Amino acid sequence: MSSEFGKLLRVSVFGQSHGRAIGVVIDGLPAGEAVDLEELQRFLDRRKPGTSPLSTARKEADKPVFLSGLENGVTCGAPLCAMIENADQRSRDYGELADKPRPGHADYTAWVKWGGHADMRGGGHFSGRLTAPLCVAGGIAKQLLARRGVYVGAHLSAVGGVLDRPFPLLPTAALFDEIAGKSFPVLDDEAGERMRERITQAKAELDSVGGVIECAAVGLPAGLGDPMFDGIENRLAAALFGVPAVKGVEFGQGFAAASLRGSENNDSFMMENGRIRTETNHAGGILGGITTGMPIVLRTAVKPTPSIGQAQRTVSLSAGENAELTIHGRHDPCVAHRAVPVIEAVTAAVLLDVLLEGNHGTF
Amino acid sequence: MSSEFGKLLRVSVFGQSHGRAIGVVIDGLPAGEAVDLEELQRFLDRRKPGTSPLSTARKEADKPVFLSGLENGVTCGAPLCAMIENADQRSRDYGELADKPRPGHADYTAWVKWGGHADMRGGGHFSGRLTAPLCVAGGIAKQLLARRGVYVGAHLSAVGGVLDRPFPLLPTAALFDEIAGKSFPVLDDEAGERMRERITQAKAELDSVGGVIECAAVGLPAGLGDPMFDGIENRLAAALFGVPAVKGVEFGQGFAAASLRGSENNDSFMMENGRIRTETNHAGGILGGITTGMPIVLRTAVKPTPSIGQAQRTVSLSAGENAELTIHGRHDPCVAHRAVPVIEAVTAAVLLDVLLEGNHGTF
Amino acid sequence: MSSEFGKLLRVSVFGQSHGRAIGVVIDGLPAGEAVDLEELQRFLDRRKPGTSPLSTARKEADKPVFLSGLENGVTCGAPLCAMIENADQRSRDYGELADKPRPGHADYTAWVKWGGHADMRGGGHFSGRLTAPLCVAGGIAKQLLARRGVYVGAHLSAVGGVLDRPFPLLPTAALFDEIAGKSFPVLDDEAGERMRERITQAKAELDSVGGVIECAAVGLPAGLGDPMFDGIENRLAAALFGVPAVKGVEFGQGFAAASLRGSENNDSFMMENGRIRTETNHAGGILGGITTGMPIVLRTAVKPTPSIGQAQRTVSLSAGENAELTIHGRHDPCVAHRAVPVIEAVTAAVLLDVLLEGNHGTF
Amino acid sequence: MSSEFGKLLRVSVFGQSHGRAIGVVIDGLPAGEAVDLEELQRFLDRRKPGTSPLSTARKEADKPVFLSGLENGVTCGAPLCAMIENADQRSRDYGELADKPRPGHADYTAWVKWGGHADMRGGGHFSGRLTAPLCVAGGIAKQLLARRGVYVGAHLSAVGGVLDRPFPLLPTAALFDEIAGKSFPVLDDEAGERMRERITQAKAELDSVGGVIECAAVGLPAGLGDPMFDGIENRLAAALFGVPAVKGVEFGQGFAAASLRGSENNDSFMMENGRIRTETNHAGGILGGITTGMPIVLRTAVKPTPSIGQAQRTVSLSAGENAELTIHGRHDPCVAHRAVPVIEAVTAAVLLDVLLEGNHGTF
Repeated sequence: MSSEFGKLLRVSVFGQSHGRAIGVVIDGLPAGEAVDLEELQRFLDRRKPGTSPLSTARKEADKPVFLSGLENGVTCGAPLCAMIENADQRSRDYGELADKPRPGHADYTAWVKWGGHADMRGGGHFSGRLTAPLCVAGGIAKQLLARRGVYVGAHLSAVGGVLDRPFPLLPTAALFDEIAGKSFPVLDDEAGERMRERITQAKAELDSVGGVIECAAVGLPAGLGDPMFDGIENRLAAALFGVPAVKGVEFGQGFAAASLRGSENNDSFMMENGRIRTETNHAGGILGGITTGMPIVLRTAVKPTPSIGQAQRTVSLSAGENAELTIHGRHDPCVAHRAVPVIEAVTAAVLLDVLLEGNHGTF
Repeated sequence: MSSEFGKLLRVSVFGQSHGRAIGVVIDGLPAGEAVDLEELQRFLDRRKPGTSPLSTARKEADKPVFLSGLENGVTCGAPLCAMIENADQRSRDYGELADKPRPGHADYTAWVKWGGHADMRGGGHFSGRLTAPLCVAGGIAKQLLARRGVYVGAHLSAVGGVLDRPFPLLPTAALFDEIAGKSFPVLDDEAGERMRERITQAKAELDSVGGVIECAAVGLPAGLGDPMFDGIENRLAAALFGVPAVKGVEFGQGFAAASLRGSENNDSFMMENGRIRTETNHAGGILGGITTGMPIVLRTAVKPTPSIGQAQRTVSLSAGENAELTIHGRHDPCVAHRAVPVIEAVTAAVLLDVLLEGNHGTF
Repeated sequence: MSSEFGKLLRVSVFGQSHGRAIGVVIDGLPAGEAVDLEELQRFLDRRKPGTSPLSTARKEADKPVFLSGLENGVTCGAPLCAMIENADQRSRDYGELADKPRPGHADYTAWVKWGGHADMRGGGHFSGRLTAPLCVAGGIAKQLLARRGVYVGAHLSAVGGVLDRPFPLLPTAALFDEIAGKSFPVLDDEAGERMRERITQAKAELDSVGGVIECAAVGLPAGLGDPMFDGIENRLAAALFGVPAVKGVEFGQGFAAASLRGSENNDSFMMENGRIRTETNHAGGILGGITTGMPIVLRTAVKPTPSIGQAQRTVSLSAGENAELTIHGRHDPCVAHRAVPVIEAVTAAVLLDVLLEGNHGTF
Repeated sequence: MSSEFGKLLRVSVFGQSHGRAIGVVIDGLPAGEAVDLEELQRFLDRRKPGTSPLSTARKEADKPVFLSGLENGVTCGAPLCAMIENADQRSRDYGELADKPRPGHADYTAWVKWGGHADMRGGGHFSGRLTAPLCVAGGIAKQLLARRGVYVGAHLSAVGGVLDRPFPLLPTAALFDEIAGKSFPVLDDEAGERMRERITQAKAELDSVGGVIECAAVGLPAGLGDPMFDGIENRLAAALFGVPAVKGVEFGQGFAAASLRGSENNDSFMMENGRIRTETNHAGGILGGITTGMPIVLRTAVKPTPSIGQAQRTVSLSAGENAELTIHGRHDPCVAHRAVPVIEAVTAAVLLDVLLEGNHGTF
């Protein structure tokens, strides 16, 4: 078992980069929910590689076909299966890669695990391409959440050392929409411009850069999640580390909290219009694993794309000796900006699951 | 369901800070494993609050009583239940706290979730005291792992902005033992001295500080873990966020990778004595969720202790109005150093689970 | 992982028959629920071996001690741990049994699994004694259910071939109470008298008899449960087969349905006071895994107690040769009547879990 | 979550009877396993409705298309997705059925659960058609098991009161093959002939009949499974109740054991060629939830097909009043014979999961 997450809402991803199709089964989706397919497609297009110099040139239509669970555009309660056929499958460069694991990729670990039977063309099941079906699941989850006043949005908060400004204390759905409409998902477009330069420069140097994505969710009631190992942080982190290239997850102040004093990091409670909130939100909307009612705020670290054009040292699996590898073909010099909707998608799917479960603290 | 983690090895924690007892049930522990109770006690003592000015003055013996699963010091296959009775339960200051949630604590979210029925004396089920039974589980897991050549160790890598040096590329069991034997768990004792000063100073100012813990595991074979959502990172993160005060988890370079180039972050493969390893270990021993055979390296961010002596703004739940709170009693000005064995414990329990499952990639 | 069941409500059983204590952790119990300890004790006493000739003479007080989760008789949201200390541990006859597995018991399979490290004194973790903590969990679940108009009851429907009459179409809480108050849990006391005779006769012949337990639950709304593998039948069966000696589970007409025509077995729908019900209930209250709103009706087959006084053929594990075994000590000539509250307990715990989850079909 | 089962091997079924496609995702299948597609098709054909008067006339090719996980006929480690497109979708008679739930079907419970959004054409997700993808999963599992000396087979042990003879004490793969090759899956062809007559007669009377399926698995080692709630019986029953129309599951003597004496039901242990076995197998190969090494033997009760041609009483959901319903179209007068490979499939999938997990009793 591996490519699934969720408790009442199970998201199960299948497919390999160069196989016949990729897809997702969503089990536990409530019935009677209309899915706006155009809105979903716009969401999927946000992760699509474009023709800009910032992304790979691979053309992917990424049009999901719904095999089950959706009738006349409305969920029917049965598990929803969406499939995306793989049209553009260039496998010609694969021969060398099958023997020489690419540094930073899962080629080697897949080979150890699956004894050489792994379909590693284009990264196989480990490919970033598998985030397309994740976005189908998350895009649908986002629509259900929005219908209930819960909104999820994200932006690039750093690329190659250039920082975007952080989300404001109380982000809004309108702000999320504004970022989603941009060609480069940042709050501060000037910072975005410098990020693009870093990416372009890395590309020119046959190299790549990483980034940080900040994601927020607003509108969740207080009291969701359970203590210790089934809290919101546990569940989000468990799913977010499933996104390829994610190497760190933090909530609220996260690692920065380690340098703060308690008097700086604690969020004071206050009354506002008869309701309790906190003045600040260093906790990222979560205390003891349970939602406070303030925005959920998290950040994920995305490592630089392992596929780079420079010659790299590796080994020949067949010869059992050191070897050199130069990866040909076209690769994203940065995946962090394309990962922004993916992080939203996974966050939304987890939060819908949490919301479906509700607050069972009392009965 | 909340206070459990694990797949084949299930660790279920129970108890409240000021209840009758705290404890743990470990289901799935293999039979025939001797548990060295003295070694276990030494491990438990590492998280014990001492008489030093760095910790709370609460006296806790933390002697586990084994109710089941362990006969004549050897596991018998049945679920192991260990109980620690709560001896020192000072609840006298609780009256005010029941009405005024402490900023940064789970008091408020527990109240929302459990409708006022929560036993929040001393933090209740959310208390750091619950890490004692976690250490029982993890301490036993460490013994089983060590018997198979897998060693887990940790150190404080930062407190209040002061940094310890990182683990070397290939940490050893001897190094882990050396740190475990220190009164303050750092690699660089001079850095440790400055950390202590930060803690002492925070305490003097009725404040607290946070920290970062770096944990490593050596000796695991390559090929453990599954792709996407059941990888080593997913499983470790899901459990580690269950440790109170943890707000971030990263593997290998983690968030630092976001600022690196691919050429810097990729770990080149190389042959060494006929076996494949990587020259560097920026991946923290995990690629695609699966172990590479290099050391697992992770860091967790621990927020500053929320309980501070300064007056803080909060609300009165009964009156529904803003209020001020001054927390009396004795509290740790820093929990990060005491959390070091806890992070080891959780890491060990997860890795034992992973190791029990083995590599089912082929059959 | 083994001795646990449940989804939102997790019941984890620990202990061995002759170990220090047995017990249960219930994780996910809602807060604010009063537990009537006297009522719980009366429920536990229903499975207690008595001084009657029908049961073993072992004295067990079976008084649970609550280590956590219950404060002032009210659940507090934290996992509830209840422990029952083992007082009467006669292990003197164990020597021979350790080498000669008792036919029909788990001695042999435990030995294969746990390599001789199993604590099999008195059946160890496989002992019927472990049903005492199950009854603690189920007795508490029954109280929570009753508070919401859901009642669970059971009776012996067969012992050694003698049949009790079945539950009426619409059993009531009063009927369940009536049975629970009897010294022998049947509807037809005359049938009960003949059952007792069978048991007494079997005992006189150093033998034992099996039985069938019919259990019903009334008051559940329609629409609970999920299709295919997470239906009410799946979840109940998965838990009920965890009760020692259960070898069959059926719902509604069960195996008898195999001999019926569709026209006989189908339950016609009808309106009654503006609500939909079925005229008959051959489906046992479940269609497609989902509750119909009619009573849940199930039966479990309990095999004859394997421990009998007659000489039996077995093997010597140490010598690897055929051997003869005569089991000394006192054993129940029938466990089916004592298993009646256990089946109620497990059914109640599963149904409370299902009820907590609610109907997520729509949102 | 609903349409999934399994622990290390997860089987997730999707689709509705009259939707675009049905299918299955199998996550956790080991890599490097050749799948003989012709053998798989022969297995699938065993559940296919034929042109005989015993089955529905619906034509279904049931040719699975492999979207992922299988490359060049060999598993690659990634989740395997197989899809079967729905070709013959006659929905014309659905209008009346949407308002008048068919007695004995899940129409009513689906309506309660999914609030009228359910796609109940042809039974929707509850249709027996969903057993086709189950057979894809189970057929593949059977191939992997056979390669390791584990064989699963089944036969109709009863239809409408006519009994086949039971499996012999030690069934063989050859016997399983022999049954699988028959047009009617029984051991005693004369009994089979009488069963067919019962079916034909029921059909002539616009009625239907139920049946019992006996399934066995040989070749499993002793020691698999875990005590209490994660035993072989628990896991098999939890999955088997997911097969539409199954209303009872029993192991070994099952319900018959309730009428036996312990001296009759206990299986004596004996040495045979230096190995331990039992003389009889009333336990169905399972003691304490753990395999004994003897054949696993189970029986499932299949209720008579609810769809019958006779007029039946039901209600009009829209009018809220009693109504009459006559189901048109063609329906199986018995599904038990077609369910034989389905029971094999589910049993095989569960046992492969159990075998993959192995015996973790010691380490």
